[in-house]
Amino acid sequence: QLVQSTFFPPAEGVMLPTGSFSNRVAFITGGGTGLGRAMTSTLSQLGAQCVIASRKLDVLQQTAEEISSQTGNKVHAVECDVRDPQAVARCVERMETLTGLPDVIINNAAGNFVCPSERLSPNAWRSITDIVLNGTAFVTLELGKRLIQSRKGASFLAITTIYAESGSGFVVPSASAKAGVEALYKSLAAEWGRYGHRFNIIQPGPIRTKGAFSRLDPTGAFEKAMISRIPTGRLGKPAEIANLAAFVSSDYATWMSGAVIRLDGGEYVSMAGEFNELRRVTPDQWKMMEAMIRNTRGS
Amino acid sequence: QLVQSTFFPPAEGVMLPTGSFSNRVAFITGGGTGLGRAMTSTLSQLGAQCVIASRKLDVLQQTAEEISSQTGNKVHAVECDVRDPQAVARCVERMETLTGLPDVIINNAAGNFVCPSERLSPNAWRSITDIVLNGTAFVTLELGKRLIQSRKGASFLAITTIYAESGSGFVVPSASAKAGVEALYKSLAAEWGRYGHRFNIIQPGPIRTKGAFSRLDPTGAFEKAMISRIPTGRLGKPAEIANLAAFVSSDYATWMSGAVIRLDGGEYVSMAGEFNELRRVTPDQWKMMEAMIRNTRGS
Amino acid sequence: QLVQSTFFPPAEGVMLPTGSFSNRVAFITGGGTGLGRAMTSTLSQLGAQCVIASRKLDVLQQTAEEISSQTGNKVHAVECDVRDPQAVARCVERMETLTGLPDVIINNAAGNFVCPSERLSPNAWRSITDIVLNGTAFVTLELGKRLIQSRKGASFLAITTIYAESGSGFVVPSASAKAGVEALYKSLAAEWGRYGHRFNIIQPGPIRTKGAFSRLDPTGAFEKAMISRIPTGRLGKPAEIANLAAFVSSDYATWMSGAVIRLDGGEYVSMAGEFNELRRVTPDQWKMMEAMIRNTRGS
Amino acid sequence: QLVQSTFFPPAEGVMLPTGSFSNRVAFITGGGTGLGRAMTSTLSQLGAQCVIASRKLDVLQQTAEEISSQTGNKVHAVECDVRDPQAVARCVERMETLTGLPDVIINNAAGNFVCPSERLSPNAWRSITDIVLNGTAFVTLELGKRLIQSRKGASFLAITTIYAESGSGFVVPSASAKAGVEALYKSLAAEWGRYGHRFNIIQPGPIRTKGAFSRLDPTGAFEKAMISRIPTGRLGKPAEIANLAAFVSSDYATWMSGAVIRLDGGEYVSMAGEFNELRRVTPDQWKMMEAMIRNTRGS
Ligand SMILES: NC(=O)c1ccc[n+]([C@@H]2O[C@H](COP(=O)([O-])OP(=O)(O)OC[C@H]3O[C@@H](n4cnc5c(N)ncnc54)[C@H](OP(=O)(O)O)[C@@H]3O)[C@@H](O)[C@H]2O)c1
Ligand SMILES: NC(=O)c1ccc[n+]([C@@H]2O[C@H](COP(=O)([O-])OP(=O)(O)OC[C@H]3O[C@@H](n4cnc5c(N)ncnc54)[C@H](OP(=O)(O)O)[C@@H]3O)[C@@H](O)[C@H]2O)c1
Ligand SMILES: NC(=O)c1ccc[n+]([C@@H]2O[C@H](COP(=O)([O-])OP(=O)(O)OC[C@H]3O[C@@H](n4cnc5c(N)ncnc54)[C@H](OP(=O)(O)O)[C@@H]3O)[C@@H](O)[C@H]2O)c1
Ligand SMILES: NC(=O)c1ccc[n+]([C@@H]2O[C@H](COP(=O)([O-])OP(=O)(O)OC[C@H]3O[C@@H](n4cnc5c(N)ncnc54)[C@H](OP(=O)(O)O)[C@@H]3O)[C@@H](O)[C@H]2O)c1
Repeated sequence: QLVQSTFFPPAEGVMLPTGSFSNRVAFITGGGTGLGRAMTSTLSQLGAQCVIASRKLDVLQQTAEEISSQTGNKVHAVECDVRDPQAVARCVERMETLTGLPDVIINNAAGNFVCPSERLSPNAWRSITDIVLNGTAFVTLELGKRLIQSRKGASFLAITTIYAESGSGFVVPSASAKAGVEALYKSLAAEWGRYGHRFNIIQPGPIRTKGAFSRLDPTGAFEKAMISRIPTGRLGKPAEIANLAAFVSSDYATWMSGAVIRLDGGEYVSMAGEFNELRRVTPDQWKMMEAMIRNTRGS
Repeated sequence: QLVQSTFFPPAEGVMLPTGSFSNRVAFITGGGTGLGRAMTSTLSQLGAQCVIASRKLDVLQQTAEEISSQTGNKVHAVECDVRDPQAVARCVERMETLTGLPDVIINNAAGNFVCPSERLSPNAWRSITDIVLNGTAFVTLELGKRLIQSRKGASFLAITTIYAESGSGFVVPSASAKAGVEALYKSLAAEWGRYGHRFNIIQPGPIRTKGAFSRLDPTGAFEKAMISRIPTGRLGKPAEIANLAAFVSSDYATWMSGAVIRLDGGEYVSMAGEFNELRRVTPDQWKMMEAMIRNTRGS
Repeated sequence: QLVQSTFFPPAEGVMLPTGSFSNRVAFITGGGTGLGRAMTSTLSQLGAQCVIASRKLDVLQQTAEEISSQTGNKVHAVECDVRDPQAVARCVERMETLTGLPDVIINNAAGNFVCPSERLSPNAWRSITDIVLNGTAFVTLELGKRLIQSRKGASFLAITTIYAESGSGFVVPSASAKAGVEALYKSLAAEWGRYGHRFNIIQPGPIRTKGAFSRLDPTGAFEKAMISRIPTGRLGKPAEIANLAAFVSSDYATWMSGAVIRLDGGEYVSMAGEFNELRRVTPDQWKMMEAMIRNTRGS
Repeated sequence: QLVQSTFFPPAEGVMLPTGSFSNRVAFITGGGTGLGRAMTSTLSQLGAQCVIASRKLDVLQQTAEEISSQTGNKVHAVECDVRDPQAVARCVERMETLTGLPDVIINNAAGNFVCPSERLSPNAWRSITDIVLNGTAFVTLELGKRLIQSRKGASFLAITTIYAESGSGFVVPSASAKAGVEALYKSLAAEWGRYGHRFNIIQPGPIRTKGAFSRLDPTGAFEKAMISRIPTGRLGKPAEIANLAAFVSSDYATWMSGAVIRLDGGEYVSMAGEFNELRRVTPDQWKMMEAMIRNTRGS
């Protein structure tokens, strides 16, 4: 962590008023681990009944029990591989029985790993885009159709990443699929408002979770480089994403749709700006450089 | 208002926990009216001591008294024309005496009016860019320098607009100046993190305030056209911006820097997407179109 | 067409110097029809040996013969369904025999149709994203790997669309897939420069081709609406895209990589800017509005 | 220069067909030096009569004579400080006498220097934004009004920079002003198409000119860092910008308006993508990392 991080301590308590999600149902893909778990925990604390879905039922069930026992609100674990449209349909049917259709949907499930692109097989490509892009689309279309049918409004949120817009080498299937998810959500924000649906996007910067970091920085060598260019001088915390996600999904944000919110400690703007590396110039060097510039004549 | 707006009722109560800004000082330019007033009111309710600054001292004083009498927290009115760097310096000095340097800075003051660009004189151009771009820069640089000097961290927020990125005809000085403000804030997010400063941006969509609407839609004819393309089917409320601004400025968002948050009911994505006008196609027409498309052969 | 279109007549002749692509091989997917055919024709006129690939061999062969007989340069037709990685590999092998690996790659093949998203089945979703996103990835990865293996540089170009960044309702699978393609190309621009590869993107606005218009505007009713908001007052011509594509793929653009070039007559900025609808205000109405604004006092 | 730069040799000859700008008048601010000089030279070779304008008449005159003697086409030198609207008006009047109103306008004049933002005085801020943003606006509005009055179409081009969208520390006034210029040009692309005007933007990456490099990299220490992250492995050449600018301003691009074209060797996407630093990982390290990732279980 950089020195300046003392100015930016994380607040990990729940932000919204108690009961903000009472009588609400929230559906979170990948809700058993990492950021998905943190969002589930926050929504549950705020009164929501949660349904979490991913491939590993045992992991989901353990998370569901742990959160539910802390918050006193039901958390349901439903097995679902989002790559399979029929599995998605079955999962939604199960949810309808358990809780009814959701008020809040968070598309958070994803896969990713670092790899030079010339080493990617077509299957490796598909292994990521099928989860991230097709999976998000199948979940969103399945739920959307049923909500429209039932004339029920909902808030949809997708978790993407700060390199979805810029692209990035070495995580190319993820970059492409996440960019696709952002276009999907901006498109539906425009199209499905008339059915009472909102669609928003959160782009997290680096946050240590086992799922992400074991596949993106297996040796741990990259973390220091990342932190050194984060203006707030530290990684994020799952609870920080969870508070933002809860706000975006809440009644305080009913006028928010089509928004894309970066929460990354400033990393993106810091990388993207051409002269930001000059942070390494010392005050003495600046004095010298100023003198040189002042003495320049003409073009 | 469109029918779907019943799905998206505005929440105008304060969102953050009581006392979120206790012992904090907030400085809001243009805090006497419109959105600035709403943000001041929210921060004051949350415990902040506020300093509001603009040209019209009487307006500021009345707002200060009204808010302060409701919240029980001090609101100070300081006259300041942000176009004048010396007036800005004097205002900041006065604030140092009154409250000390601020923890929260909101650059909200602006000017704007609709006009075909071929009717703009150089003075008309400057009348807007001097307030919006230079004014924001003078306030930000003056406060930044003093905060750095005092080794004090702070959250800076700029209020821009949804046409800052895309540009827009008929409000060109405003579009240009607001784009400049966004670049200023993204730049400083990268550069001044090391001093404990965060910089973020909120882009509001249309919200009825006297200041904005009397100069952007003097006849009232444009409002209907705007609402018809807003997916959530209504204009925004000042309190919705205020809750978002309070969150961004709060300790719950210490990892947010360099973010640009659109809050516009979905208007921007709705305008920008090439085929969104097809919302006017009726279900029967869709059936016909589907049949025609299905019968198309080849390219 | 709008009156102002007389200021913007299309130039349909070839722009680059004769022989600009002599001894070069160009590979164009979807090169048998529409924009792909126009790009093939231009590159062929400029001396390139072209390989065009898509599903319909007869269409390809006819185009190949027509162009080749006009330009005197060989055009090869190769059947290839880009959704199938093995078909892509076979196609590239065939090209290696015919012409060797290409210097210029244009990913232009695509599918699209207008449809309310609630009517999209998972298969309809996949029918578009498989061609547009996976197809582009399979072609790009297959060629990239072989070019890297052979230490050969190349220029890659993807044809996307103006709604790839903004998203758009009613063409949602296309919007998502095209956004994915853009991220893919920006990512590889960064990653594969070291292998001598450049990656760029052209975003066309509306250009009448049978393939696009029969599925996007089957009744012809939408065309007028589009033209009315295009600042240059007309649709584009395939040859205009072809000249831009030839430039981007040529030796005059070796320093261009990671660029995203919109060519749309100004439609995108015109749609996206919130106040651009005020073009409908008449001069007399402006006079009245100016008077009203001038008389406004305060905020 | 990096090894891969051999794949990307610059082409410095003129690209467009001879006579592409015959009987055309081009107005280039800052046309006496650097990129402005290169664009003037290219347009002059292509048949344009050029008018170049900036503060230093002697520099302009020397450039004018040199180019004119090489191309045989007239180049006029007109003194003009773009910060001063009256000087701009006088300059345009002089041009009307010399050549008539222009067909091509290139806003290229600018000022810039690196500096930590906490060392910027209000005057330092204004010294840059007055040239870059106000100067571009004054030139554009003055010419626009007269062209509209004369019912004459024209192509406007602005030269901005790759950090206009992202912002950048240490060049903050320039970043803000250039972002303002981009919004100005996108706005007018939408608004003034009806008068026969097009507006486009080129964002150059680093190109060694005395004016830019002496104030942005006075010690020369930064150049290596920049090159190391440019995928094409080298800086750009003025002639590469000139060929692109000539294309954009030519009759081959009459359907281009509101476009923003980055020409930067790929630097921007390379900086912005979060994982691009992994280019430093060696093939052996990749093998190890792949093994570690493959062995990861769960999230
Ligand atoms: N952590 C970061 O630094 C970071 C940064 C940017 C973005 N993000 C995004 O944040 C989200 C959460 O990531 P995380 O860091 O929390 O990692 P994580 O713990 O690995 O979360 C991914 C989740 O997705 C689920 N999942 C994977 N494939 C699935 C499938 N086919 N069907 C259903 N569920 C599936 C996983 O559960 P199962 O294995 O049980 O299926 C897992 O719970 C992701 O969208 C990620 O891209 C994270
Ligand atoms: N309302 C909307 O629909 C909307 C949409 C997008 C963005 N916005 C943005 O939201 C912000 C607030 O707008 P609003 O709608 O609340 O309008 P508003 O009430 O007119 O607010 C503008 C404020 O700026 C102050 N101001 C103007 N010139 C100043 C100067 N030279 N020095 C100091 N203060 C100055 C004004 O106070 P004095 O007259 O006392 O100086 C006024 O309080 C603006 O930045 C606006 O661009 C609003
Ligand atoms: N025209 C416009 O207004 C417009 C606007 C924006 C973007 N674009 C883009 O411009 C490009 C060309 O479009 P166009 O207007 O020229 O339409 P088009 O004539 O329909 O071109 C599409 C081409 O893609 C080929 N294709 C489709 N599926 C394929 C597959 N699975 N494998 C291989 N090739 C396949 C088609 O050939 P087969 O049927 O033989 O396979 C056809 O030649 C597309 O990328 C489109 O998105 C066009
Ligand atoms: N070179 C690069 O790496 C690079 C990268 C990105 C963008 N750019 C942009 O490219 C453009 C050209 O830059 P360059 O590298 O060629 O540098 P340059 O040679 O210093 O060009 C700047 C020109 O602007 C003129 N100028 C400055 N102030 C003026 C004023 N008040 N009124 C009228 N003219 C004025 C200067 O002439 P006088 O001194 O005679 O007035 C000079 O000819 C600039 O817009 C720059 O921002 C350059």
